[in-house]
Amino acid sequence: MAAQTVASTTDSRTVDLGPAAALSCRECGHRVPLGPVFACEECFGPLEIAYDFSAYDTEELRKRIEAGPSNIWRYAPLLPVPADVATKPNINPGWTKLVKADNLARELGVTGGLYVKDDSGNPTHSFKDRVVAQALEAARAFGFTTLSCSSTGNLAGAVGAAAARAGFRSCVFIPHDLEQGKVVMAAVYGGELVGIEGNYDDVNRFCSELIGDPAGEGWGFVNVNLRPYYAEGSKTLAYEICEQLGWKLPDQLVVPIASGSQLTKIDKGLQELIRLGLVEDKPYKIFGAQAEGCSPVSVAYKAGHDVVRPQKPNTIAKSLAIGNPADGPYVLDIARRTGGAVEDVNDEQIVDAIKLLARTEGIFAETAGGVTVGVTKKLIEDGVLDPSLTTVVLNTGDGLKTLDAVAGTGLTATIRPNLESFREAGLA
Amino acid sequence: MAAQTVASTTDSRTVDLGPAAALSCRECGHRVPLGPVFACEECFGPLEIAYDFSAYDTEELRKRIEAGPSNIWRYAPLLPVPADVATKPNINPGWTKLVKADNLARELGVTGGLYVKDDSGNPTHSFKDRVVAQALEAARAFGFTTLSCSSTGNLAGAVGAAAARAGFRSCVFIPHDLEQGKVVMAAVYGGELVGIEGNYDDVNRFCSELIGDPAGEGWGFVNVNLRPYYAEGSKTLAYEICEQLGWKLPDQLVVPIASGSQLTKIDKGLQELIRLGLVEDKPYKIFGAQAEGCSPVSVAYKAGHDVVRPQKPNTIAKSLAIGNPADGPYVLDIARRTGGAVEDVNDEQIVDAIKLLARTEGIFAETAGGVTVGVTKKLIEDGVLDPSLTTVVLNTGDGLKTLDAVAGTGLTATIRPNLESFREAGLA
Repeated sequence: MAAQTVASTTDSRTVDLGPAAALSCRECGHRVPLGPVFACEECFGPLEIAYDFSAYDTEELRKRIEAGPSNIWRYAPLLPVPADVATKPNINPGWTKLVKADNLARELGVTGGLYVKDDSGNPTHSFKDRVVAQALEAARAFGFTTLSCSSTGNLAGAVGAAAARAGFRSCVFIPHDLEQGKVVMAAVYGGELVGIEGNYDDVNRFCSELIGDPAGEGWGFVNVNLRPYYAEGSKTLAYEICEQLGWKLPDQLVVPIASGSQLTKIDKGLQELIRLGLVEDKPYKIFGAQAEGCSPVSVAYKAGHDVVRPQKPNTIAKSLAIGNPADGPYVLDIARRTGGAVEDVNDEQIVDAIKLLARTEGIFAETAGGVTVGVTKKLIEDGVLDPSLTTVVLNTGDGLKTLDAVAGTGLTATIRPNLESFREAGLA
Repeated sequence: MAAQTVASTTDSRTVDLGPAAALSCRECGHRVPLGPVFACEECFGPLEIAYDFSAYDTEELRKRIEAGPSNIWRYAPLLPVPADVATKPNINPGWTKLVKADNLARELGVTGGLYVKDDSGNPTHSFKDRVVAQALEAARAFGFTTLSCSSTGNLAGAVGAAAARAGFRSCVFIPHDLEQGKVVMAAVYGGELVGIEGNYDDVNRFCSELIGDPAGEGWGFVNVNLRPYYAEGSKTLAYEICEQLGWKLPDQLVVPIASGSQLTKIDKGLQELIRLGLVEDKPYKIFGAQAEGCSPVSVAYKAGHDVVRPQKPNTIAKSLAIGNPADGPYVLDIARRTGGAVEDVNDEQIVDAIKLLARTEGIFAETAGGVTVGVTKKLIEDGVLDPSLTTVVLNTGDGLKTLDAVAGTGLTATIRPNLESFREAGLA
């Protein structure tokens, strides 16, 4: 495990990441100073940020947040970032719309209030901007000069854009035979975009090798050596949802599962708000959503297992297609502990759900949004999700990025340019 | 001219559109009651909204705006909408980022502060959401039940999304042979999408015919019979820019020209802020930006003409490709009166400018954004735009919608998945 040997060009004692006090192992609780490491030297468990929130007064904190900028930095007091983060060059994602989805609620029979948290409004139109913006601040704190990742889609664009804004070099690794459209979306920001002769596993293996090598010195891989910081970005989804509901917890949340990190961090964020007194302490249920073609967590949930058996993904929901999700066991625990569930829908149901959301709310979601809306529908039909409770469904990306999924959608009529033809087509 | 005979299902005396008092002819000043009409019955000039702002106290108004929602409805007191507009189902665009573009400023030599107003952050990722949201409120006020338009791109998506959210029927007319990608983006919202056997001119001619026919009763064509209301949506760009600058006027603005409506309404918005005392009364310059392949206003400006000679468009900036811009003469007047200019750039310069903006600021703009950035660069090089003054450049759309323009962008290297190959490629 090379994680501990990653060189940082900054002494960790001088690192100012606001309320972040240390890294702490999720498994054994072992603490280490803040640095670009991600695995526990004792037990190889994942490292997380440990905070010191002890100085906060609830009402002062609430006011400070509400007076903050219209982006994730309004929550700077709860994130591993310096207090003046909003003045630094970053892409400043977040504060996306929480849409009251009354039309969709009617179609699904939800009476308790249905909301869509629409993260397609982020700068590169996916929730990845939240985590990358966070990783960028860690990279800056550690004195890194290159921002990097392996990716097959949304992450590449988010890294490219954030690095450009912040004046970092970026170097993104992708399989060399990726679709041209995705290559263009990643390449336009002008950083290094390196095609690896091999599949996505080969790309990842190479990145791990590079992190352990002197050639990788000064490189921040957002979701590898910066992962503990990166992952915290997902907490902001929980903060925003509660603040946008008037500092109230929703009763139910439907969250997509790729690695499972987002779901676990949303739970962490909700727990923090309760502990800080920013929302009342009441139960909430978290539901996980997967595509049938990549449903390792859903399968484990239904089988009553605590561990997740890897799958080989085969689904149109490519941004969720992680066959061996690192946080799978934590997701299972959260779903069970909160009284939620994990469910999956097939590709046809995903496409139907994309169209349903677009038709009812005018929101064009990525396939991942089709997964959460489709799973919500299924959970209601199966009596698992309670339609009389306040429910928030996440859309984490933009339909423009997965146009192929709805490529069959087209003209409802073709007519000649005159009123007679218009009437014949039954359009009057 | 059939405009005056369009039937409204609501008595115009009962229409509540907030501070909007009447429609007034831009040419002869003739006033008519608020209604779904767009051309003066006396002189055929364009009708505009006339407001009654007389009751406003400057400080109260400023506070009311600042306490408003994070979308265009914060400016409801200055728009033709009812006071409770924010509670009605709409796509709620606006309050998009004003990005301090320090990297781009360095490249262009701007020292006075350079900002990009990035309207790709709107719900369907173009500024059209602003005008459509406005037209939707007029349609609601007039009792219309169908929202319609002719379109070849951004407008179709904005109308489809807004109608879906608001529970309106939508019917969008497009040339039957449009590219499949654009058809999908418009069709996904589930409204009627009608292909017309003919070119865009045929589509427009047919829509005019439909408006004058009983078959079009109850139909709001956002940019025809609702045009006076629709056009006002562009004022919100001016309001937001000034509020985001701390209630200050920028010294210079670079605005794209399609029909010219947006530029004229930005000027109107700035004038209103001055008259209301929300910003100080000082000079500002407005620069218009066109693509060389559709530059009727730029050509007229350079020739010193007051009228605009129509062109047949041939440019990659399709969202600006209006060969006979209705507001061309008004644009010429504003550019000259404010001390600005109108300039154009060719397709190659547009592509270069898209890449420049992405590389420096992480903003992936539509071709229209390439036009404004490219024109800004050209105006600075020519000594026309003063780099020592505060300058705001508009990006009105998203690069994901015009991927073809940068299709040549690709991998910077291809390597085998090992460190040796990485070093050979000079990436270390």
